[in-house]
Amino acid sequence: MSAGVIGPEIDRLIRLLARLPGLGPRSARRAVLELIKKRETVMTPLAEALIAAAERITPCSACGNFDTTDPCAICRDARRDEASLCVVEDVADLWALERAAAWRGRYHVLGGVLSALDGVGPDDLRIAGLIERAGDDRVREIILALPATVDGQTTAHYLTDRLAGCAVMVSGIAHGVPVGGELDYLDDGTLTAALKARRPF
Amino acid sequence: MSAGVIGPEIDRLIRLLARLPGLGPRSARRAVLELIKKRETVMTPLAEALIAAAERITPCSACGNFDTTDPCAICRDARRDEASLCVVEDVADLWALERAAAWRGRYHVLGGVLSALDGVGPDDLRIAGLIERAGDDRVREIILALPATVDGQTTAHYLTDRLAGCAVMVSGIAHGVPVGGELDYLDDGTLTAALKARRPF
Repeated sequence: MSAGVIGPEIDRLIRLLARLPGLGPRSARRAVLELIKKRETVMTPLAEALIAAAERITPCSACGNFDTTDPCAICRDARRDEASLCVVEDVADLWALERAAAWRGRYHVLGGVLSALDGVGPDDLRIAGLIERAGDDRVREIILALPATVDGQTTAHYLTDRLAGCAVMVSGIAHGVPVGGELDYLDDGTLTAALKARRPF
Repeated sequence: MSAGVIGPEIDRLIRLLARLPGLGPRSARRAVLELIKKRETVMTPLAEALIAAAERITPCSACGNFDTTDPCAICRDARRDEASLCVVEDVADLWALERAAAWRGRYHVLGGVLSALDGVGPDDLRIAGLIERAGDDRVREIILALPATVDGQTTAHYLTDRLAGCAVMVSGIAHGVPVGGELDYLDDGTLTAALKARRPF
């Protein structure tokens, strides 16, 4: 951009927005123009919402979910089964399971998966907290809902080893053909996994 | 989303971000998680940048560009040719021409194009300001750099009619094969336009 045409305020806003996932420099520029045009209805409310969230949102010290309270709403909810923990990589996965209303127990957010390539080791994840929770007499089952990637499954195996000494049942979510999926469009790995994990009707 | 899992602060942030172009509900959720994780480096600076921009950015009363000063940096720049105005639909187009360093004159941002379908009439655009500027003795040339769409070209014809009484030369940017474009991949309309607008070597 030739000097002086985009002022420092707009330029800073574009560069900050471009750091969000899903927004590159081009869409960040479009977003900034939209913000300037909708100053009263979007720009100012967004600034206020960011400040409110930055001040109030904190990770739950038990499960790692984000909420304005600690423990979070799920950990405080007495109707949710405290005997079962579902281990997920990220809060986004927790949200996905909640949207699907697929789980009525509690969660444990690892904050990532082990990755030799990215230099993520056990101490970088919330694993110590998981082992501690697994040692609690009330917890009887741990379900590993980790991504079906090499790193995700490496992490699942590592956790299974670490949890071997605890009196909990450890399982992993099923891998196979997605509901509504056509075999023709699926990759070889998924088809092989689905065949290997076949179950009698 | 099941009630209570995403608190009102996070939910509000997601809904506001989802209103930006290029972000849907899914990418807004990802963006919010990223913001919460990068509170110090992105979330708080973004809130501050939004407030600073909301307070300081204003449309230039002459050309419609966004800047912290009025007139804007381009209108104040004595090195830019005040005899030539380039008419664009939006500030985004002005930025695109500036990035390409394609224009050394001044601009006039219409703020849209005429559209019967969307109910955009001449009074909704900054046309009166353009006619007024065209009447200025210093302005000798007006280039219509409007989109090569039906609405864009309707607007260009309308402006040509309105500017007929002014002592300015009115032209439109060329339509044809984009630089680097292969004929094989171009649509019929572009090929027809490029042939019709052929020029002797």
